Amino acid sequence: MSILIKDVLLDGKKTNIYIVDEKIKSTDAKAGEKADHVIDGRNKAAIPGFVNTHAHSAMTLFRGYADDLKLQDWLTNHIWPLEAKMTEEDVYWGTKLACLEMIKSGTTCFCDNYWHMPSVAKAVDETGLRAVVCEVFMDLGNVERGEAEKKKQVKLVKKIRDMKNSRIVPALAPHAPYTVSPENLAWVKEYADEEDLLINLHLAETESENADYHVKHHKRPVPFLEDIGFLGANLICAHSIWLTRREMNILARHGVKISHNPVSNMKLASGVMPYRQMKESGLKISLGTDGCASNNDLDMFESMKYAALLQKVHDYDPTVLPAKEAYDMATINGAEALRINAGAVRSGKLADIALIDLKRPELVPKRNLIANLVYSAKGSCVDTVICDGKILMENGKVQGEEEILEKAQETADKLFAK
Amino acid sequence: MSILIKDVLLDGKKTNIYIVDEKIKSTDAKAGEKADHVIDGRNKAAIPGFVNTHAHSAMTLFRGYADDLKLQDWLTNHIWPLEAKMTEEDVYWGTKLACLEMIKSGTTCFCDNYWHMPSVAKAVDETGLRAVVCEVFMDLGNVERGEAEKKKQVKLVKKIRDMKNSRIVPALAPHAPYTVSPENLAWVKEYADEEDLLINLHLAETESENADYHVKHHKRPVPFLEDIGFLGANLICAHSIWLTRREMNILARHGVKISHNPVSNMKLASGVMPYRQMKESGLKISLGTDGCASNNDLDMFESMKYAALLQKVHDYDPTVLPAKEAYDMATINGAEALRINAGAVRSGKLADIALIDLKRPELVPKRNLIANLVYSAKGSCVDTVICDGKILMENGKVQGEEEILEKAQETADKLFAK
Repeated sequence: MSILIKDVLLDGKKTNIYIVDEKIKSTDAKAGEKADHVIDGRNKAAIPGFVNTHAHSAMTLFRGYADDLKLQDWLTNHIWPLEAKMTEEDVYWGTKLACLEMIKSGTTCFCDNYWHMPSVAKAVDETGLRAVVCEVFMDLGNVERGEAEKKKQVKLVKKIRDMKNSRIVPALAPHAPYTVSPENLAWVKEYADEEDLLINLHLAETESENADYHVKHHKRPVPFLEDIGFLGANLICAHSIWLTRREMNILARHGVKISHNPVSNMKLASGVMPYRQMKESGLKISLGTDGCASNNDLDMFESMKYAALLQKVHDYDPTVLPAKEAYDMATINGAEALRINAGAVRSGKLADIALIDLKRPELVPKRNLIANLVYSAKGSCVDTVICDGKILMENGKVQGEEEILEKAQETADKLFAK
Repeated sequence: MSILIKDVLLDGKKTNIYIVDEKIKSTDAKAGEKADHVIDGRNKAAIPGFVNTHAHSAMTLFRGYADDLKLQDWLTNHIWPLEAKMTEEDVYWGTKLACLEMIKSGTTCFCDNYWHMPSVAKAVDETGLRAVVCEVFMDLGNVERGEAEKKKQVKLVKKIRDMKNSRIVPALAPHAPYTVSPENLAWVKEYADEEDLLINLHLAETESENADYHVKHHKRPVPFLEDIGFLGANLICAHSIWLTRREMNILARHGVKISHNPVSNMKLASGVMPYRQMKESGLKISLGTDGCASNNDLDMFESMKYAALLQKVHDYDPTVLPAKEAYDMATINGAEALRINAGAVRSGKLADIALIDLKRPELVPKRNLIANLVYSAKGSCVDTVICDGKILMENGKVQGEEEILEKAQETADKLFAK
């Protein structure tokens, strides 16, 4: 399978992009290059598909269900009771809806962290996206539950690998330092290193979890995790708001990656991630949407703008987190964190590409494309999406989208009626 | 001219909306009502068109031109030099582009504050939107300039009224307390009261302007404005970030309206408007986008979400500014501030309506429409826009949009080459 994108804008120049199988063969191809499919790239710009490094996809079903609530009320009275009722089928359709929304807004890869992950993998497989999938590991200090969780993790890794789909990679997701015992965190680390797996952890999302941890373990989470040998370059920490300078340096020294979730952090009033200081510490920061119950969408354009603007007002400095840094967070930094050969439109990279419709009023005038992408574009500016060399959307249409919307609505209705 | 919108969702119920001339005749009409034009409202929700109470429309031409800069650098080295070169033609095409973007994202009325306002009025007239237009009044303490500005204001008011277009209303726009002499502020107030005009003022956008004002006038702006009798119910203050409790009470006592501009305030790092305290003081707060040089778009859906989320993280309280309050700010509060009989879809109101496409993935599941509109919808969810009983957009298409995009691009290119 080969695709030729003709006369498309790439890094400010008109060119032709040639894709063979799952990879970009050339970004400077001849206009007459023979291809199975030719896309008219006029009035379009090619950018890498976004990489969303922290999502709970199936939570699309919870959209508009529990907003404007205090965190504990939100979690214990709304989210957890509903999640307890969710079946594989619910997660499947919730994830399908999420995949549709992601494709429509230019995301080609995401790291998903939830329950019933084989259903997530099935949805990803069918919709053509790329994903790192990991099942939440939570023992709450219960030894038996911990043993069962370990078995589940091993089983999932095997199951995902047995799919033999290069777009879907298993990983491990110990929920947070305060919900997984130190022994099991150590097990996760050891197993991850043995099997060369990424680890996705919630870290320092709220101030109180750090304080509570300190009372219980006589140490804050980051130094504790360092002590037990948990930190490493295969660890991606979501949120990571409440960190001291020393903790940032510890994380950076171990090559830990950060997934910043500005929209969720604002909506749940968790706090403002200290971006400037973290950047100074040398930490690599990518971008995530978090789940739809705390965002409530999966639009990475929106997350880029929120990331940039939140830091500016928080630091009283409009020069902090300029457009290009937000763009890199959403693309190349995400790809590096998830260890995929994408995040840039260059020959040799995976053909994970979004074509932007430059005829949208919010993209006129065309002066600075990166600034327009970060500060005025929306998901709806995406016209075409290619992932792994296959076209998932052309002219704004995704195959089967009507069915996904109907089934997701039905599934949500049934879930809420339970 | 009459329009029947059939089988549309309004306030959670399926109904038919009947429009005769510029007004909503019934929101519970018979399905067989005879109308010149029938709109299929299935899978759509009717909401009032948004009211944007603070814009500088022609600044769409500056989109992506000067981002991530300190306020003074931004203003003195980038914005002002370019504005000095702008012609009537530039403002006309910049405003046409803004009107197109506003229509496409569901805004039907805006308060515009700029230069060359007859060009703005012409653009508004042609595109069919509703607007309050006011020319920036700035004397910088220069008596001669002040006299010239006064004449210009009077001339503009007459010129706009001579258009005899009920959709376009003149107002006055003294720039800010620190750029207009107290004598001329007093003149503006007197003239506004005589002619029954609204006044649009920038107030307390930065901390330093208050401090500088205090040094010069031995009073902060709000008590000073009260002393000279400037405050009243016809005054709409944009930004209004740096206010003390006492100042909020003063403004509320005089019935002053506030236009909150969260996206601009974040991007320029101006600060966070103290919403909770202002609400407690009884102030009526509406929503504005500000100009595209500091936003960089005109999407009121985005501004609603920013308003809600900024307050939550700032107050460390997710219950502050719930979805419904953000929605009211963008609709009914704006209409009240601009004194137009709109902001709600009810019989007797002006027919300023947006129809939302409920088949967008970010609006599924349909659980809580207001939450979905505020937290997950984007401008692109708008399918149809009616203003003053006329259809400005149907199925996402605005007549003449290609020409506007081309001309705006050409105009921007020429302006930047000057």
